[in-house]
Amino acid sequence: MKRNVKVAIWGFGAMGSGMVKMLLKKKGVDIVSVCDMAPHRVGKSIYEVLEIEKGSRPEVIIKPEIDEVLTEGCCDVCLVVTDTFTKKVFPKIKTVLEKKINVITTAEEMAYPQAQNPELAAELDKIAKENGVSILGTGINPGLIMDLLVVCLTGCMMDVEHVEAKRVNSLSPFGPAVMEEQGVGATVEEFEKGVKDGTLAGHVGFAESVRMIGDAIGWKVEKFEQQMKPIVTSIDRKSPYGFSKAGDVAGVNMTGQGWVDGEVKIDMIHPQQIEPEMEGTETGDYITIKGTPDIHMANKPEVEGGIGTIAMCVNMIPHVINADPGLKTMIDLPVPRAIMGDFRELIKNEN
Amino acid sequence: MKRNVKVAIWGFGAMGSGMVKMLLKKKGVDIVSVCDMAPHRVGKSIYEVLEIEKGSRPEVIIKPEIDEVLTEGCCDVCLVVTDTFTKKVFPKIKTVLEKKINVITTAEEMAYPQAQNPELAAELDKIAKENGVSILGTGINPGLIMDLLVVCLTGCMMDVEHVEAKRVNSLSPFGPAVMEEQGVGATVEEFEKGVKDGTLAGHVGFAESVRMIGDAIGWKVEKFEQQMKPIVTSIDRKSPYGFSKAGDVAGVNMTGQGWVDGEVKIDMIHPQQIEPEMEGTETGDYITIKGTPDIHMANKPEVEGGIGTIAMCVNMIPHVINADPGLKTMIDLPVPRAIMGDFRELIKNEN
Repeated sequence: MKRNVKVAIWGFGAMGSGMVKMLLKKKGVDIVSVCDMAPHRVGKSIYEVLEIEKGSRPEVIIKPEIDEVLTEGCCDVCLVVTDTFTKKVFPKIKTVLEKKINVITTAEEMAYPQAQNPELAAELDKIAKENGVSILGTGINPGLIMDLLVVCLTGCMMDVEHVEAKRVNSLSPFGPAVMEEQGVGATVEEFEKGVKDGTLAGHVGFAESVRMIGDAIGWKVEKFEQQMKPIVTSIDRKSPYGFSKAGDVAGVNMTGQGWVDGEVKIDMIHPQQIEPEMEGTETGDYITIKGTPDIHMANKPEVEGGIGTIAMCVNMIPHVINADPGLKTMIDLPVPRAIMGDFRELIKNEN
Repeated sequence: MKRNVKVAIWGFGAMGSGMVKMLLKKKGVDIVSVCDMAPHRVGKSIYEVLEIEKGSRPEVIIKPEIDEVLTEGCCDVCLVVTDTFTKKVFPKIKTVLEKKINVITTAEEMAYPQAQNPELAAELDKIAKENGVSILGTGINPGLIMDLLVVCLTGCMMDVEHVEAKRVNSLSPFGPAVMEEQGVGATVEEFEKGVKDGTLAGHVGFAESVRMIGDAIGWKVEKFEQQMKPIVTSIDRKSPYGFSKAGDVAGVNMTGQGWVDGEVKIDMIHPQQIEPEMEGTETGDYITIKGTPDIHMANKPEVEGGIGTIAMCVNMIPHVINADPGLKTMIDLPVPRAIMGDFRELIKNEN
């Protein structure tokens, strides 16, 4: 019998620890090591932090230094769950690849690093190939809802004229960090200032999703633009970690456009806010594609971002281990899928 | 510059000729030869049959014998658009593979031949590998709507408890052959007789879709069943090629179940009828998955079967040419996608 698939995690926040929790319920896969710098977690057992019975599993102590955590080939894949931007995550990914370990990362820009950092993408591809391993950036969005799912649906189309991907989601389940990043509770003036000075993050990933769609279906995206506007509430709204007074900001409406042949052919629409139902907004994921035939897809309510991102990263592990060496994106690999069986049965020619 | 991708077609009925029409509008791809036995088409130019200007394209004359049409390696892929069942299409696919040509087929059972013909599937895999080429069975359904799209949506799920795939479609666009196969206009008695003696085809593909989903997500499907019931109309319904009197059959309601661990975990529901709107039936493709999180997807109206099947087969051409040798299914290859650019740019290490 094949040995278990071995997974390491870099970053043990909500997403990273969620992936560990999910993996602990699956068959044929082991968590071998965890790197995290948060002082309140360093030195603790992951089972203690997660409040899960260790049982007969070997102990895993959270360590702050990656070189203490990863030795060459010590595991099959490392989930790098630490950053948003390619430039910032680049040295981390490089470190892991040079230890001959495959990488899956949640860094939004890494879902299609060719879009905004083509030189770094090329360098990562080269490093991965030199070390015989592969890298994938994924998550719920970018990664599935506003890009791969669009691409998949065009598969039954003879021609595509226009793509609109719309994700209307609730920020209510998220914590204080997200409230701040998205401007929940800010005044309109504070929000506008945050957009100008770059302190409000909004959604990162439109540039990546637009290029992924364009490259997949053979559209050369010649221009990309995005806008970030406040969603002003007309009534007081309260969520577990957020509050916005009538007249203030309940969230952010992100819009983005990809130009092809001189016209906008890809539209991205992504309003995120707390308690959207309070003003009659129905959350959901919507894909509308004009062409032959037209597609009018809706998934209501939307796939919750946290759960979706955790699942996407875990579920792509076998595909990334099986991939040829190099930088991969979601359009290069077989379709994602839930893993209800044994991880070991999904690994080809390995172990 | 690379040479154009070369495509041959075996079967020039509505589907095969539709694929040729679609390909003639695309860049970087040529139709090199067509095989069809219909006496009214044999010996004619495909351009004459399609009523399309030949322009500067080389002539393609429809020939009835495959050995006249295909020589070893004369093209990159042959679309085999002739059959429904694996057993019947097997010798045709074998012939093409032995000429070192990749195959894409619309034969419904070939979407997952492992389900009902595992020995033939293994033999096709062996022949394909011996000849360094690959085979794929695809179409709108099986191929995308009730299987691959389900699999793709589970990609953002931590756990899956139950899958329901429902396709409610109109038979109104189809011709007399489909009306007869699906029992449109029959009395209930005639319909029941047709089900018993096997003259009514209904939808072929549930067994394949169910196994594809099961194998993809790691569920062992231990039992499969399907049912075929008449859709009896309470009013007269008329479509271009069909008519059913009040009290007679307007179409067929196919249902199927896949058992996993002693319970039904996969439900397939596929009512097909003429003029469904006349009795308030809204057509569409619906995927409901219970698990973490739940998925409630709808695409309304449904993707039209003919267009979708033509597009899926054409759009998978680059993936099949690029695949490792052997028998492939939709869950082995990268996601399908429309081709709005040049076919040549999609071919790796070839030509």
